[in-house]
Amino acid sequence: MRLAIDVMGGDEGPRALIEGAARAVTDFPGLELILFGPRQQIEAERLRLPRPLAAATSRLAIHDVSQSVTTDATAGWVLRHGQSTSMAQMLRCVALGNAQAGVSVGNTAALVALARRELGMLSGMSRPAISTAIPARFGRRCYLLDLGANVDSPASRLVEFAMMGAAMAQQVDGIQQPRVALLNVGAESTKGSASVREADSLLRAASSLPFAYHGYAEGGDIFQGNLDVIVCDGFAGNAVLKASEGLSGMLVERVQLAFASRLRGRLASWIAKPVLKHLKQELDPVRYNGASLLGLQGIVVKSHGGTHADGFYFAIRRAMREVEHNLPERLAERYSIYG
Amino acid sequence: MRLAIDVMGGDEGPRALIEGAARAVTDFPGLELILFGPRQQIEAERLRLPRPLAAATSRLAIHDVSQSVTTDATAGWVLRHGQSTSMAQMLRCVALGNAQAGVSVGNTAALVALARRELGMLSGMSRPAISTAIPARFGRRCYLLDLGANVDSPASRLVEFAMMGAAMAQQVDGIQQPRVALLNVGAESTKGSASVREADSLLRAASSLPFAYHGYAEGGDIFQGNLDVIVCDGFAGNAVLKASEGLSGMLVERVQLAFASRLRGRLASWIAKPVLKHLKQELDPVRYNGASLLGLQGIVVKSHGGTHADGFYFAIRRAMREVEHNLPERLAERYSIYG
Repeated sequence: MRLAIDVMGGDEGPRALIEGAARAVTDFPGLELILFGPRQQIEAERLRLPRPLAAATSRLAIHDVSQSVTTDATAGWVLRHGQSTSMAQMLRCVALGNAQAGVSVGNTAALVALARRELGMLSGMSRPAISTAIPARFGRRCYLLDLGANVDSPASRLVEFAMMGAAMAQQVDGIQQPRVALLNVGAESTKGSASVREADSLLRAASSLPFAYHGYAEGGDIFQGNLDVIVCDGFAGNAVLKASEGLSGMLVERVQLAFASRLRGRLASWIAKPVLKHLKQELDPVRYNGASLLGLQGIVVKSHGGTHADGFYFAIRRAMREVEHNLPERLAERYSIYG
Repeated sequence: MRLAIDVMGGDEGPRALIEGAARAVTDFPGLELILFGPRQQIEAERLRLPRPLAAATSRLAIHDVSQSVTTDATAGWVLRHGQSTSMAQMLRCVALGNAQAGVSVGNTAALVALARRELGMLSGMSRPAISTAIPARFGRRCYLLDLGANVDSPASRLVEFAMMGAAMAQQVDGIQQPRVALLNVGAESTKGSASVREADSLLRAASSLPFAYHGYAEGGDIFQGNLDVIVCDGFAGNAVLKASEGLSGMLVERVQLAFASRLRGRLASWIAKPVLKHLKQELDPVRYNGASLLGLQGIVVKSHGGTHADGFYFAIRRAMREVEHNLPERLAERYSIYG
């Protein structure tokens, strides 16, 4: 398997990303990664890798690109002027079939715009959606989408999101009949925004859906473990995701402080630290697992700009899983039958 | 001070609410509460109160009403048929000036609709907004609004929310120059839904605002402690609030489990329980503090349907603070100058 990796655009430069990439090729002997970015910088970072990882660097190829997309670049700017950035080159590589999937930590709006142009949309899909699996009760997970690629989504697009999310849960997680719901402000049918109520009507009227439609869900249902997919406009999805990240960060900090004030020194370290570290990882899904761009004729995973090596490693694993399950093709099949 | 209390509509009947009310009159000798609900039931619960609370029950008056608003009643239904419910009677009592504020745990949509009709809106305000103070870093708090009274809010209404939230932070919390931001999917000016971008233009164009406008905020900023008010449509606000409640519930559970598996019996109880109890309270603001209906010609606080006695006690405290600071009048003054 060969993946294309944009190593630019991270909050702290390419070091952590190259380490994450090195771990992935070390763990998976059949994996080859093409790193897009300035050759000199990548080579320097490759040389700094700790010994156990250095052995596999022959499978970390370099595609030399000096330009990169800045964090404040707009979609409009990258579409006009971004052809020779590491992000666009990485996507071009996927589009040409030289890699089976692409991964980037860069600017989301730019990634969505460039991916749409370079890879094209699946038939019947109008725009990419971003989705990630949020950890829920009972060790379950819930795909939330869209997470910010689309705002002011009309009903028809919400229905597309439902199809995309269900295909993901079905193909990648092996859930036969995913339970899908629309995010709303209440469970009653009279509530909610116009587009959500119209999407509900469309889904109820559909003669045969490749998933179980459960009607409306509220924000709290994301974490209850009773639903596999929750669909919303990118505005609400983004707000919920970022609020959840902020809240879990604050909570972990408070638990830390609270225990530190009751326990001293080693005892606190021994009891609290491993628990808290685990919690942090589990509750920051984008930082740790990456988010998928869905609806494209190709596989693109967005990793968090502030991710560490292990987060980027998991984003690469996510892309590998989607390749193994041939996600876009399966989504296209599903959609052509039921769309 | 005299407040009107609707004791119906709670998830588990009026018992917890009457206990919360009894605690409030016990703690505040100048406080009188009028309880709206079925006399027999309220009298029975009053008799069951523990001794230290029983002494003050002479200041728990009863207004006998047999009907109540059900959890599935729509706004339309209560406006047509709900005149003789405990909720409508409680609001009427506030409207007539027989009480300075009202508190209810009942159906939110019904409360918003009835409050708007019974009390009327302040001049320049089109619809009530719901707001609560979310706990943030450094012991700070951030008012988030709207939390679900309005969906599909146009830009002008978002500006109203900004005025309302700022007045709340200013009057009730004594923050001279509240820092106010609009919730969006990114900090860049090109991002976001049409109504949010228009509201941003309106706020930037305003010649003198009674608060410091900070532009866009993201979901995570709610918990950072750098902003006093974050404004959004009720759809996103409701999703964020309910997701935060769900997430903090799940987190506390996980911390509990994680510690239980490392510590045994008494040690776990001694170390973890008080910390977790405190966290739970702090992170479930609506259950514990109540939410305010803003923009009305009167004070109405909505407490959580599943609240316990202490949560209802805090909702009553919230209403008392708004009475002390004469919130609607201050808001009207502010708005007539700057609106």
